[in-house]
Amino acid sequence: MRRLRKVAVIGVGLIGGSVALAMRRGGLAAQVAGYDRDAGALESAARLQVIDQVAESVSEATRGAELVVIAVPVKAAAAVLHDVGLALDPSAVVTDVGSTKAEVIEVARGELRERFPRFVPGHPIAGREASGVEAATAELFKGARVVLTPVAETDTKAVELVRNAWAGIGAKVSTLAAADHDRIFAAVSHLPHLLSFALVSELASRPDAADLFGFAAGGFRDFTRIAASSPEMWRDIALQNREALLAELDRYGARLAVFRELIEKGDGPALERLLAEARSARTAWAAPARRSQAE
Amino acid sequence: MRRLRKVAVIGVGLIGGSVALAMRRGGLAAQVAGYDRDAGALESAARLQVIDQVAESVSEATRGAELVVIAVPVKAAAAVLHDVGLALDPSAVVTDVGSTKAEVIEVARGELRERFPRFVPGHPIAGREASGVEAATAELFKGARVVLTPVAETDTKAVELVRNAWAGIGAKVSTLAAADHDRIFAAVSHLPHLLSFALVSELASRPDAADLFGFAAGGFRDFTRIAASSPEMWRDIALQNREALLAELDRYGARLAVFRELIEKGDGPALERLLAEARSARTAWAAPARRSQAE
Repeated sequence: MRRLRKVAVIGVGLIGGSVALAMRRGGLAAQVAGYDRDAGALESAARLQVIDQVAESVSEATRGAELVVIAVPVKAAAAVLHDVGLALDPSAVVTDVGSTKAEVIEVARGELRERFPRFVPGHPIAGREASGVEAATAELFKGARVVLTPVAETDTKAVELVRNAWAGIGAKVSTLAAADHDRIFAAVSHLPHLLSFALVSELASRPDAADLFGFAAGGFRDFTRIAASSPEMWRDIALQNREALLAELDRYGARLAVFRELIEKGDGPALERLLAEARSARTAWAAPARRSQAE
Repeated sequence: MRRLRKVAVIGVGLIGGSVALAMRRGGLAAQVAGYDRDAGALESAARLQVIDQVAESVSEATRGAELVVIAVPVKAAAAVLHDVGLALDPSAVVTDVGSTKAEVIEVARGELRERFPRFVPGHPIAGREASGVEAATAELFKGARVVLTPVAETDTKAVELVRNAWAGIGAKVSTLAAADHDRIFAAVSHLPHLLSFALVSELASRPDAADLFGFAAGGFRDFTRIAASSPEMWRDIALQNREALLAELDRYGARLAVFRELIEKGDGPALERLLAEARSARTAWAAPARRSQAE
């Protein structure tokens, strides 16, 4: 892609920092300006050479940028979008990296107003338990999927610019309707996180928690790895995608009730059939072709 | 420990095969005889030199053995214990490797009768998604925990022999009452397996399963890794440990309902508090000291 004159990254945590680093390393932008309301994070980003210009405000970062990447917790996005809207060049493009899309689209519509067609909602499917700019890496998006969820008004050239920027740092980009995105990720990401957090929460609340954790092994480790994720981020995701997540939780509850009943009745054949179907689906999903993509 | 004259391994799958291999490699037994009702598995065990004597029956394997290791699916244990009881030397010791203990103890009491004090119930906390003798490795138990659940009648010398055999192949041995064992493992192992299987089962049952799996990434991979485990084994575990598992499932359901309510009400602070507590507990559990033990 054409080298961008200036990219602004608002929020230099793991995701924002990794975007900045990857764009600098890849030579996709002549200048990457960063802003973070956490002065310490911003200092670290400068010290680690994740960004090459420290901005004092969202406005300062935004001014003159061809692309503004908003990588703040979803709840903080409204205030940032407001400030971005005021300072944005008429031809500049704005994107975000939030894990839920329907709500941020409505917020952006209200805050960006006539600039809204140049907002391209995005969601990179990448992350690690680690957070913060210290964990940022230029390789985070290599081979990762990024989903863009443009709406009817979204400028197709703006979508192309954002698509090319992600592709330029190694991501595989696809598009979905925002509602489909939110429903799909409620099922395959938000629900498992909630289930994992809930298991650890339940066990940790008991008087004999130490005994329980003392005997936990490999299966527990895998199942609960995502319960080490950021509480603030998952609080926001759960609340922002509330309707889809509750719907998924109820579907899951219904399925779990079927398992419960088979166990209670001692119906071995039916239980084994369900377990075997699940195993086949999981094994097919993790087959080599998919695995190399997902790892 | 003193080198044993002969060890019999009944059931040469992943666990039995790995025990046999580790005991041979470690020089803990002069002879390791194996039996499996699956003739192909038994042939493979001989070909791979996992065992050095192929027995035609449980009785043949058992005769002359100082230690008999029963490593068959829990449901098959009754018939094996019956045959072992008939052929067992008066001074020989029997142990098993089942994931649930209360039921096998009752079965052993009935089948072994006057030999029951020489039965030492055991549970090595080791396993992989792979199964079968081809996956057996002498290193499977290095650093793994093994829980023994002797009862009041159990001969303390028999417990010592089994403890030394496990320690001799690298495992860390502890003891628990069978009921405590079953309750603890229902919470930290059987329940997470059930929850993981149920999620994949639910998603796989939908018309749009391909879309859902297509966007599943790292969190999903970790959460569902255990849903690739053996359906037969987990059917048996769920049914054998039914009461403890259902009790755990209900506790979990109650905790999940709390999360659901907080999400539905939009109570961010309370939701974040629960998520943060879970994250702390998971992070403390996975701290380096514990991790090196559990990996």
